[in-house]
Amino acid sequence: MDLIQALNWRYAAKRMNGQKVPQQKIDNILEATRLAPSSMGLQPYSVLVIEDEDLRKEIQRVANNQPQIVEASHLLVFAAWDNISEAQVNDYINNTAETRGVTLESLDGFKNILLGIAHHNTQEQNYQWAARQAYIAFGTAIAAAATEQVDATPMEGFNAAALDELLNLKEKGLRSVTLLPLGYRDTENDWLASQKKVRREKEGFFLHLQQVA
Amino acid sequence: MDLIQALNWRYAAKRMNGQKVPQQKIDNILEATRLAPSSMGLQPYSVLVIEDEDLRKEIQRVANNQPQIVEASHLLVFAAWDNISEAQVNDYINNTAETRGVTLESLDGFKNILLGIAHHNTQEQNYQWAARQAYIAFGTAIAAAATEQVDATPMEGFNAAALDELLNLKEKGLRSVTLLPLGYRDTENDWLASQKKVRREKEGFFLHLQQVA
Repeated sequence: MDLIQALNWRYAAKRMNGQKVPQQKIDNILEATRLAPSSMGLQPYSVLVIEDEDLRKEIQRVANNQPQIVEASHLLVFAAWDNISEAQVNDYINNTAETRGVTLESLDGFKNILLGIAHHNTQEQNYQWAARQAYIAFGTAIAAAATEQVDATPMEGFNAAALDELLNLKEKGLRSVTLLPLGYRDTENDWLASQKKVRREKEGFFLHLQQVA
Repeated sequence: MDLIQALNWRYAAKRMNGQKVPQQKIDNILEATRLAPSSMGLQPYSVLVIEDEDLRKEIQRVANNQPQIVEASHLLVFAAWDNISEAQVNDYINNTAETRGVTLESLDGFKNILLGIAHHNTQEQNYQWAARQAYIAFGTAIAAAATEQVDATPMEGFNAAALDELLNLKEKGLRSVTLLPLGYRDTENDWLASQKKVRREKEGFFLHLQQVA
């Protein structure tokens, strides 16, 4: 489905009907997410994929009891690196060398830029930067779900500290950023299903600058 | 073009060839951007659209002299609200009432939640939250450009304070977050054009959780 049609079709379903999403569609959404760009190409985040119903019930408890978390087919948790380590930068440099068939030495300059950023910033700054990158992947996943005609409800409303503890994310060097249940809208029980999409008018949202005022 | 194919086709072009992008393609990319979701649907950001060459030359000076800024056809600047004001919340509520044909009173509860968030947080927190939403729109714009076979180079490498001053963004209640030149890759002069895309392997990037460890 054409991206603009898909974005008009999608909305943040408030209720889902429990129907499972075919694996091929899940795979396509995940692959689009993996292909999303990030600053310097580092991809400083992971995506947790949760189908288990019991685990989703536990997650629901720290996420304002939002029903879509259990009514969805799969739940994605976007989690950013809680810091940028030398080991993570090395993994990326090694992957780049292998993928492109170039020497590690040829990537030394690039590696030093990455390490310079990581060392110059505080852990919190590195995390915040990583989280912003995760939002690009999050946006890409939402668009991909829409083109697959799969409903996806972007969520920030959860207790991130409690979720990190529940999923042992600290041990994994991650902090949860956003949730994305994937499934199918429950048209009969979702008040929002019949409502028109609200978006800002082009005027004011787009500013066409000709020259400096 | 299929989204996954498009995401595989795209890359962050380091050089562009100056060719203009047809208006219909620009319009499609902007419309997808406008349709991007945001927390509570507030869309707390604007997108500056800059075609003027002289202005792009000035922007290039505060953006590490990156050549794509002037070699592109159009430059998008994603700029987040520097705070969340009652007037902005009211505009959104009015737009919602008008679009959906409901009374303002029926939206009072929703409005109070939004105002509660805006008042509870500091200006900086509101800005950071707005900036994260802008990243969703940024990711959507990148995906949309790819489906239109238009090159787009996501950029964080610029002096945001200097750009805000150059474009008088403070007066507009905005702070620049990211840049996105739109144009066409200069395959001959771009060393990156022939390089393979580097992405993390699925293993490690996706974490399939079955139950709490």
